[in-house]
Amino acid sequence: MADKELQKRHKPAAPLSEPMRGIPGFFYDLKPAEPQGANSLQVERAKATFDSSKMTRFLFTNYLGGIVNEVQDVLENDETFSKENRYYMGRSERFLDRLKMDSKFAQLARELKWDDARRTMGSLLIDEPGTFSLHTGMFMPCLNSQGTDEQSKYWLGLAHNYRIIGCYAQTELGHGSNVQGLETTATYIPETEQFEIHSPSLTASKWWVGGLGKTATHAIVMARLITKGKDFGPHAFIVPIRSLENHKPFAGIMVGDVGPKMGFNCVDNGFILFNKYRIPRDHMLMRYSKVDKDGNYSAPPVQKISYGTMIFVRAYLVASSALALARGATVAIRYSAIRRQFTDPEASKNDEVFQQYVPQNPKLKCETAVIDYSLQQYRLFPIIAQSYALHFSGFWMLRIYMKMMKNMNDGNMDLLPEVHAASSGLKSLTTTIAAAGIEECRRSCGGHGYSLFSGLPDFLNTFLPLVTLEGDNHLLTQQTSRYLLKQLRKYKQDPSSIPKSDGSTTKYLGAMPTKSWTAAKTEADLQNPLILLEAFAHRSQRLVIELATKMAKGQVWNDSLIEMYAISKAHCQYILLKNFVHAAYHDKRAAANEVAPVLVTLCVLFGLSTMESELSEFVEDGFVSQKQTVWLRAQIKKSLAAVRPNAVALVDSWGIPDYVLNSALGRYDGKVYESMFEMALKEPLNVNARAHGDVVEGYEEFLKPLIQRGLSSDDKAKL
Amino acid sequence: MADKELQKRHKPAAPLSEPMRGIPGFFYDLKPAEPQGANSLQVERAKATFDSSKMTRFLFTNYLGGIVNEVQDVLENDETFSKENRYYMGRSERFLDRLKMDSKFAQLARELKWDDARRTMGSLLIDEPGTFSLHTGMFMPCLNSQGTDEQSKYWLGLAHNYRIIGCYAQTELGHGSNVQGLETTATYIPETEQFEIHSPSLTASKWWVGGLGKTATHAIVMARLITKGKDFGPHAFIVPIRSLENHKPFAGIMVGDVGPKMGFNCVDNGFILFNKYRIPRDHMLMRYSKVDKDGNYSAPPVQKISYGTMIFVRAYLVASSALALARGATVAIRYSAIRRQFTDPEASKNDEVFQQYVPQNPKLKCETAVIDYSLQQYRLFPIIAQSYALHFSGFWMLRIYMKMMKNMNDGNMDLLPEVHAASSGLKSLTTTIAAAGIEECRRSCGGHGYSLFSGLPDFLNTFLPLVTLEGDNHLLTQQTSRYLLKQLRKYKQDPSSIPKSDGSTTKYLGAMPTKSWTAAKTEADLQNPLILLEAFAHRSQRLVIELATKMAKGQVWNDSLIEMYAISKAHCQYILLKNFVHAAYHDKRAAANEVAPVLVTLCVLFGLSTMESELSEFVEDGFVSQKQTVWLRAQIKKSLAAVRPNAVALVDSWGIPDYVLNSALGRYDGKVYESMFEMALKEPLNVNARAHGDVVEGYEEFLKPLIQRGLSSDDKAKL
Repeated sequence: MADKELQKRHKPAAPLSEPMRGIPGFFYDLKPAEPQGANSLQVERAKATFDSSKMTRFLFTNYLGGIVNEVQDVLENDETFSKENRYYMGRSERFLDRLKMDSKFAQLARELKWDDARRTMGSLLIDEPGTFSLHTGMFMPCLNSQGTDEQSKYWLGLAHNYRIIGCYAQTELGHGSNVQGLETTATYIPETEQFEIHSPSLTASKWWVGGLGKTATHAIVMARLITKGKDFGPHAFIVPIRSLENHKPFAGIMVGDVGPKMGFNCVDNGFILFNKYRIPRDHMLMRYSKVDKDGNYSAPPVQKISYGTMIFVRAYLVASSALALARGATVAIRYSAIRRQFTDPEASKNDEVFQQYVPQNPKLKCETAVIDYSLQQYRLFPIIAQSYALHFSGFWMLRIYMKMMKNMNDGNMDLLPEVHAASSGLKSLTTTIAAAGIEECRRSCGGHGYSLFSGLPDFLNTFLPLVTLEGDNHLLTQQTSRYLLKQLRKYKQDPSSIPKSDGSTTKYLGAMPTKSWTAAKTEADLQNPLILLEAFAHRSQRLVIELATKMAKGQVWNDSLIEMYAISKAHCQYILLKNFVHAAYHDKRAAANEVAPVLVTLCVLFGLSTMESELSEFVEDGFVSQKQTVWLRAQIKKSLAAVRPNAVALVDSWGIPDYVLNSALGRYDGKVYESMFEMALKEPLNVNARAHGDVVEGYEEFLKPLIQRGLSSDDKAKL
Repeated sequence: MADKELQKRHKPAAPLSEPMRGIPGFFYDLKPAEPQGANSLQVERAKATFDSSKMTRFLFTNYLGGIVNEVQDVLENDETFSKENRYYMGRSERFLDRLKMDSKFAQLARELKWDDARRTMGSLLIDEPGTFSLHTGMFMPCLNSQGTDEQSKYWLGLAHNYRIIGCYAQTELGHGSNVQGLETTATYIPETEQFEIHSPSLTASKWWVGGLGKTATHAIVMARLITKGKDFGPHAFIVPIRSLENHKPFAGIMVGDVGPKMGFNCVDNGFILFNKYRIPRDHMLMRYSKVDKDGNYSAPPVQKISYGTMIFVRAYLVASSALALARGATVAIRYSAIRRQFTDPEASKNDEVFQQYVPQNPKLKCETAVIDYSLQQYRLFPIIAQSYALHFSGFWMLRIYMKMMKNMNDGNMDLLPEVHAASSGLKSLTTTIAAAGIEECRRSCGGHGYSLFSGLPDFLNTFLPLVTLEGDNHLLTQQTSRYLLKQLRKYKQDPSSIPKSDGSTTKYLGAMPTKSWTAAKTEADLQNPLILLEAFAHRSQRLVIELATKMAKGQVWNDSLIEMYAISKAHCQYILLKNFVHAAYHDKRAAANEVAPVLVTLCVLFGLSTMESELSEFVEDGFVSQKQTVWLRAQIKKSLAAVRPNAVALVDSWGIPDYVLNSALGRYDGKVYESMFEMALKEPLNVNARAHGDVVEGYEEFLKPLIQRGLSSDDKAKL
């Protein structure tokens, strides 16, 4: 039953069946050379040691399955949401196509009375940043959290029904991470009870604002509040920017699109300049700070509550990184099981497909599947392990975030510093891991990874801004390190403050430092994730202590940034492994679904390969011995071999629909080559040429004069 | 004098001067907030300790300067070669635009009688893969090297004048690196003295062939030669594919474009399928292998000569990687000197610009230039050092290649294995380094690095295929390792075979293995590149010996691929450092141009940062001690500080013209923000909207119904 439901996610393939005008008949008789991709995947799936549909249920809990199918059915059966032409569109086309989709989606969601879960699933399935993303993702939440009750009610009512379309304008052309450095001003004019929004320079222009360029009617603008001659720093204002009558920008502003980007080209990221532009006083969002009629300013007592949204977004990005990496791995692993190159009988000794072809019919050459080369496994299997690691920590982040918010509503702020530190460091680490991993997956597909049809380039380019957005991945590590240094100091001064609970992420900082990895007595001990975890705790603790010592001796903040980056990474890798161990050993649902053993295998690979990639930090203080590094490298090979039979099933477990993958290389049924051809035939250069006798536009103008220069028709006939 | 010549490369900037229709007047009064970028760069240039124009002459030798200006003048003054719209074009547009350029370039080059150097400079300046690239880069050289004298004369005569346009069709949909696995056949038919070219399956389709999709009239096709029932493997055939009369593809073939890619979208990479397609016997390229009228096959005695082209291409890619990385660094370093973010007086203590603003006028806020944050230096300065390292090894490769070819023409093949091994490993390492470095440069530009206007995304996407082309970067390392293992065995068996010359890349394999880094006695010793080089030699030797030992004990080839990748990298990092040391210490032109001291600084940074990035391999056998790793990290900080005053001058030295950079962030004059705006205003979404009252296309259809649903005009007026 459940299996069938999961199967539904993958659309049945009927490539190349319908004859196209101008395609010669012989083409339709061709098939890929043996063995067929479908055959290879079938064999791979049969040899898994666990049930991938049970893993899906373990990863996502049951209920999601139904929603995926329900929403996907609607979208796949509506022309508007077809992805068939996505890879061929230029920027303007793609923007317009997306606008059309957004408009239709808003209508559908209303008609079908979709709840938030279904709407979210819809965006995930459409899988493209939308022109309205910031309307629902930033504009509305910001109104909700920063507006007074009256403001929220009024504006949210309009926004909910798309009477107005909003965006969130904070970043400026010359100012990003440093919000206090923003230049745009909002000066209060008591005479008219208005604010005058103004851009004093070119660098003050708002920039990168999603949905502002061409779509939004209103913007929440962060501007320095100035009243009675005093500058109170950035505050939020609702600013109408385009007429609701005819969508023309109002006088006194200059608004437009910031131009083409690596990805996100379906979104109109915009700029806006204000020239003494007036808005009414009640357009300032006044839940916390207020300006009265006379221009008197009052500030809120505490503003810690605003950390909540920031932490939530970061936690969400950790979970998103997991899914992004899983998607890269899905494409690369499936294709690696199908793609064959060179013949190495030793490497193929466990490949049933290879064995079927070679001995029985030596004339039917069978090459080795690239997944059977050890270097390909070494590149890709740790990425599978990472995707699971990121998933468990993503869910942990969301759980701990909710716990924190509950506590905070009860007035208990205790969890905030720890959760803030973990969310900053993990956002940095996991988006970095995912971006690197997706690109590695792409390259591991060889030449075809460069084609948009692989499904990876476009997707990677959409993911990439996450290493910069919501806190630059390098800057963010200072947040985490600052916290760790502070905890170390605290634990030293007051040992009773050292956390008792194993749930704490910083308990290890208070432990007695160890000198060597005595727990790893034999090579087999390296297959024990708890012993690995001990090494990660030691390394992170040592790095924090060393930096604390340097700074105590006078090393200034700016000279410590390199160490801070290392510390944050070390701490967060420890958290990732810790949460993975928890999922594999302590989550009862893992046992119930019979996936615990394969999770342990994967957890060990994650620990070992992460340790290897950071090995110097484990070795340089003598903690990990020379002999243990030799064990480590040997055990990695052992772990790769252990993962091998489950590789395809482990990526299948994510249950990512073909509709999302949009990939010739990664499709569930393995029809890689048929699909590459099908997609190539739809390339507009081909379609347009076929409409003109298969001659390219531009031939008469640019090629013919070159080829036929000064030739008589006799000459031409000879060639 | 020479300075002026170099200055000419950078086009004078006049951004935003001409009023555009629909842009409000207040816009033209705005300037970026102080300090201006031009000011920051001026201060940076003034504090350099060497003359960047002398460095340019040292890097490229004098004569290039003249050619750059000469060719650039022609191109910049011709509308056809304008890059103004490059970032806005969709695929079909861009292909057509490129075709137009290619056609015009061919005409210009003929009229102006440009020699090969000027033609090459032209392509470098146009800086976009061309539809004719493979015509001149592969088709013609292949005719030259593989055709008989008669064939060469006939076909090259036509090709040289673009009477025919050629491409090189080797890779197939299902077959890349393994040339022996190609499926396309060329069966000899003695009755008609013809070859029948045939694609037996879908995977046999040629794929990725540059220029084939829409442009080429002829293809050199690699197909399995079958005669008298015997398969002699892949051979080269000239195959006419499109009519010279009307450019229509001939019957019996199916040809088209393979679709959109990450980059190279101005090139029509193509596919082709043959259905029993006949060509005359004399269309087989017969300089080496031959088939006579009766179908008798004769093969050449040796074919080692064909390694020449392959090695040349790889050597060329090493040099190209240097320039690519230098370009990334140019953009990132200049922008980092201009971009300011947060205020850290400690970090800005040596920044004259900061000091001017802050103490004299505390009201004029001045933030810290991001180049002054230690983490930014740690990310970027090693990339500057790498670009120089790659450059010296690229030139070394070209020199040693020419020496080898000279020897081979004299019948001496001795150098071939060493040069082949070095070229394989270096191609792999340097293209990997450059791809990673360019992306790091892009990310270090923060949000604006994501805009195409940064000049980095499009350029990176064009560079990326080099990690796969001409030998996949992972596969290639087997070539290098195989050679190193062989040399080790040889030196062991016959110590007299150990090279005596310091020019040898493998002499270190024959040295007595050392146990620890005794040469580094004090922290200051780590500033000595020769002492660093010793450590690199030890590490590579140790890794080769360890793998040899494992394989002697029975570890099979497939289980050794991970170690082989590591060995090739270690060996090539040793070569990179070795050649850098040579350039800094032994190249008389470095001393003559007074650039030796700054090169030494850079060489040390290259050695130290490379060692740090691979530290575990230096530490895990106890060679580098715990104390030495502490020194290492401290000395890296010292090196970063030493490079700091020269950072901008070091990237200026590459002399990359603004015409090539095509970057708002990296332009020579520092007008970053003016340029970002200027480019944004030309975005077609803006241009098209401005033509319609600044209302976006799609408003009436997709936005208005949503916004105004069920509203009366009274309601609307209220909003």
